[in-house]
Amino acid sequence: MENNDCLKELERHKKLLSATLLLNSSLEPSYIHNKTIEAITEIVSAEVGSLLLYDEEKDELFFDVALGDKGEIIKKIRLKIGEGIAGSVAQSRKSLIVNDVNKDPRFFRKADEQSGFVTRSILCSPLIYKQKLLGVIQAINKKGNDIFTDEDLNLFESFANIVAIALENANLYNKLKETFFQTSFALAEAVEKRDPYTGGHVKRVTEYCLAIGEELGLDKETMEKIELSAILHDIGKIGIDDYILRKPSPLEAGEIEVMKSHPQIGLEILNKVRHLSDIVVGTFSHHEKYDGTGYPKGLKGDEIPLIGRIIAVCDTYDAMTSNRPYRKGLDDIIAIEEIKKQRGKQFDPLIVDAFIRAFERGKIISQNKRELNHEN
Amino acid sequence: MENNDCLKELERHKKLLSATLLLNSSLEPSYIHNKTIEAITEIVSAEVGSLLLYDEEKDELFFDVALGDKGEIIKKIRLKIGEGIAGSVAQSRKSLIVNDVNKDPRFFRKADEQSGFVTRSILCSPLIYKQKLLGVIQAINKKGNDIFTDEDLNLFESFANIVAIALENANLYNKLKETFFQTSFALAEAVEKRDPYTGGHVKRVTEYCLAIGEELGLDKETMEKIELSAILHDIGKIGIDDYILRKPSPLEAGEIEVMKSHPQIGLEILNKVRHLSDIVVGTFSHHEKYDGTGYPKGLKGDEIPLIGRIIAVCDTYDAMTSNRPYRKGLDDIIAIEEIKKQRGKQFDPLIVDAFIRAFERGKIISQNKRELNHEN
Repeated sequence: MENNDCLKELERHKKLLSATLLLNSSLEPSYIHNKTIEAITEIVSAEVGSLLLYDEEKDELFFDVALGDKGEIIKKIRLKIGEGIAGSVAQSRKSLIVNDVNKDPRFFRKADEQSGFVTRSILCSPLIYKQKLLGVIQAINKKGNDIFTDEDLNLFESFANIVAIALENANLYNKLKETFFQTSFALAEAVEKRDPYTGGHVKRVTEYCLAIGEELGLDKETMEKIELSAILHDIGKIGIDDYILRKPSPLEAGEIEVMKSHPQIGLEILNKVRHLSDIVVGTFSHHEKYDGTGYPKGLKGDEIPLIGRIIAVCDTYDAMTSNRPYRKGLDDIIAIEEIKKQRGKQFDPLIVDAFIRAFERGKIISQNKRELNHEN
Repeated sequence: MENNDCLKELERHKKLLSATLLLNSSLEPSYIHNKTIEAITEIVSAEVGSLLLYDEEKDELFFDVALGDKGEIIKKIRLKIGEGIAGSVAQSRKSLIVNDVNKDPRFFRKADEQSGFVTRSILCSPLIYKQKLLGVIQAINKKGNDIFTDEDLNLFESFANIVAIALENANLYNKLKETFFQTSFALAEAVEKRDPYTGGHVKRVTEYCLAIGEELGLDKETMEKIELSAILHDIGKIGIDDYILRKPSPLEAGEIEVMKSHPQIGLEILNKVRHLSDIVVGTFSHHEKYDGTGYPKGLKGDEIPLIGRIIAVCDTYDAMTSNRPYRKGLDDIIAIEEIKKQRGKQFDPLIVDAFIRAFERGKIISQNKRELNHEN
């Protein structure tokens, strides 16, 4: 091999190797989407990179990420397989160079019209993993008014291969996580349905908790822990007998004691799971009170895990605003006043503040309000 | 760069790139372990490659994979951090070349003594992912009686980086899967505990089903589906009232009908989960009978999904051999005879045959037998 050829080949391999390391260093699809778009411009010297994912159910391509101020417009565009250059590539599963899009009848003009962007040239490759179409990547406008070459195409195809692997791994991971969370939710809902009057509680409490987490600016990992913890917070009720759970009148002292064992039962159930210790704390501590008067441990202030403090507010708010056989749910405004009164007493003041903010933004929608809107 | 240097660099990058693509093409740890060991010999021309994983709890390194006829001996070896060359590398987190192990006091002789293998030289690198030690890789005996060079070391470190990323992704995926399965199992057990007389049923049925799957030589993916399906097969009992579930005497006609609704309830619960359709079929069809006389659909023969046909045999065998408040469990041999009598009637003949084979191999251990052995 000539030295010049070798140097080119080496450059190409260096780019691909660092792209692989980068893309495989996360199982987060959004990370991979963003890094792919960034890497495209680098790999083949393009002005812009884009990634279209394949929606198998609808047999369409869509933009999951689109940067810039027209990003939101671009994200609404969906291409049928066969439509536009991207759709043609998805259909034929063969890469394509179009160095003057104006001369190509396949070019889908709408994206440019809506975004104000001017596309001159496109290099497009399909993302295929084990025969399966995952999407396409596009390099748009070769820098320096230049054209895309067969060499670019070659490199872009190798890069597409790398993207497909990283994407597939992230998809698998996320599909599994989704299945895990949905299964937990389905079982938690089934447990809650034993008491016909608590329908929707788990769902609403989970939504409220996530709204608080968002107000607090918590990271994705913590948000996921909060979600699973909220889903499973009442799972211990599996161990409470029907006659207590379904009693249509207020419980008597002895029955209240049995009912109060549900955080402990939840702990015992979930403690058998090896990697769930961060989740179990929320299940176990959601009836603790900030001033130390709660149960089962009588923990005080920050001794109560954050997840427990968050669930406590949401759980109480939902219990107050939901209808029971022996009483109608409180009006939202009255319930919010009750929550405020417990700021620093039953509840962590910072969590109450975040909850109020979320409420004011319209993110806390009580059962009452949902029924008015005919929502679940 | 000189042409010769360039060619070397290119060769090196080609090796690394193809190793990355290979290692990241699966999230199965055992696949990555095996491919890593194979790739080591290729990457730095070594006679043998080895991978030691880090056991965080015990602060030790261990061999997860060891090939050859002495593999089983090697797999029993565990190294404390700091012990041997591998242990030193794990401790210092720095790669090491030892071109004459006999002159190095750190060399851990026991492995050679026990395996009969003769180690001359070792190149060893730590596997680090985001500051976290995952293990070490070793290249053993440079081919052609040669020595490992600094160039080898350099390449090996880049390779170690690639291995660490692939391993971490696979670990994350498997940890999530384990957590999902264990959580499902914990909840299924909690449901089963509402009836104090069915303790251990889910666990035993799951074990029996996997034993049949093994006899049938099913692949890993199908085995996982069988496992989750068996774990969740009775989840519909969440919806059955205490008084029926716990009735200490045989059920009356109307109660039997309610009880028979549990596959349908299970279906309704799990149908809410997007990617669980392969699992739900087992939950729904485990009371179907091969001759078409079962419920809820009265399916016949191969119309009954394989998972349902497998659970049916295991479920019945466990019900027969377990103690109930109103009767003692059947003896294993009598129960097996009963299963055989239903071959081709209640049960798929091939599943019965596989079950009998598993029984004969000692893989089907009834509640009776476990109690004799004081096992769970």
